[in-house]
Amino acid sequence: MKIAVLGTGMVGSTLAGKFAELGHEVRMGARDAKNPKAEAWAKSAGPKASHGTFADAAAFGEMVFNCTNGAGSLDALSAAGAENLRGKILVDVANPLDFSRGMPPFLFAGNTDSLAERIQEAFPQARVVKALNTVNASVMVNPGLVPGVSDVFVCGNDAAAKGEVTRILKEWLGWQVVVDLGDISSARGTESYLLLWLRLWGTFQTPHLNIHVVH
Amino acid sequence: MKIAVLGTGMVGSTLAGKFAELGHEVRMGARDAKNPKAEAWAKSAGPKASHGTFADAAAFGEMVFNCTNGAGSLDALSAAGAENLRGKILVDVANPLDFSRGMPPFLFAGNTDSLAERIQEAFPQARVVKALNTVNASVMVNPGLVPGVSDVFVCGNDAAAKGEVTRILKEWLGWQVVVDLGDISSARGTESYLLLWLRLWGTFQTPHLNIHVVH
Repeated sequence: MKIAVLGTGMVGSTLAGKFAELGHEVRMGARDAKNPKAEAWAKSAGPKASHGTFADAAAFGEMVFNCTNGAGSLDALSAAGAENLRGKILVDVANPLDFSRGMPPFLFAGNTDSLAERIQEAFPQARVVKALNTVNASVMVNPGLVPGVSDVFVCGNDAAAKGEVTRILKEWLGWQVVVDLGDISSARGTESYLLLWLRLWGTFQTPHLNIHVVH
Repeated sequence: MKIAVLGTGMVGSTLAGKFAELGHEVRMGARDAKNPKAEAWAKSAGPKASHGTFADAAAFGEMVFNCTNGAGSLDALSAAGAENLRGKILVDVANPLDFSRGMPPFLFAGNTDSLAERIQEAFPQARVVKALNTVNASVMVNPGLVPGVSDVFVCGNDAAAKGEVTRILKEWLGWQVVVDLGDISSARGTESYLLLWLRLWGTFQTPHLNIHVVH
């Protein structure tokens, strides 16, 4: 599959690296066509890896992963272009983190809205699925870093899109349990969970942690 | 132990009933001395059960459980009286739920503060421990309703108070895993988790659910 990964940080490079390793054609998108981190990533990730602007990447991808900083996601997606997102699955991995007051970060959306909802509203023809934002980048592509069974979530208005993302989470990344939480507004739950996740990280002194829902 | 349970709803009556069943002296507090639900509860819960105003109950209890509606908790605790809470462990089980816009509820605190912090700030001489607010009332007193191992959390500024609440959660209520998340500000995490919990309830169609932290 041709995959666009928007964002050059830890989440973007980890997911892009995993997809390339699995044999997919991956284009990493950044604000600037000559982003040094994207260049370095593309050079190291093999012949099927490339990089470009957000628009270059989004136009290339059959599926798009938003791995940009949450505070910059709407701008990055505007730069990617609504026409390059139309009809495509847009997996929103970002969190609405506000580091302006230091650590721990606050959330700039939540409770009555979510970053995922803002993205879906701004790009109504994209098929937004919130996923993977509840775990650390290393855990996203290697659920086995956390012992035993733990869970990830999908939220979105498009059932077929959630089904396809669920398949990818299971078959490509190895997640055993993918919980469909409902429509895109359920991302309020998974984004607000970050406030608990940050405290759990502080308690257990490792970002390699996750939750398993028991019922 | 002499225990005050403030609040006559599902959470208050469930916890009060369990403590009475365990042989403790329990006084249920309500706004009015003649609250019919508190009267009925006290009548059914045996000779060691009693009821009264919030102040009656708080004065009686060696430990106080805040099981009032989150929106009314500060008023209820003011009625209970700072002098009746001074030096005592105050277990805050309430959630900052705002039902004014229907279901699902929103939170009226979170992200940059929490109900538990507001309570600790308003009653600086109470030893506030946030606990049990992440599970349904029936599960609070019967963790086995959820299959396998799942977790509850304690948050608070007073380590000895958290230790005593942890002991009660384990020895009286049967919780196997009690995670100390840190100071009272970590209640932002457990209160905001409600937004995820509500969606999980919707997905699994049962309130008998919980999470297990894996790390």
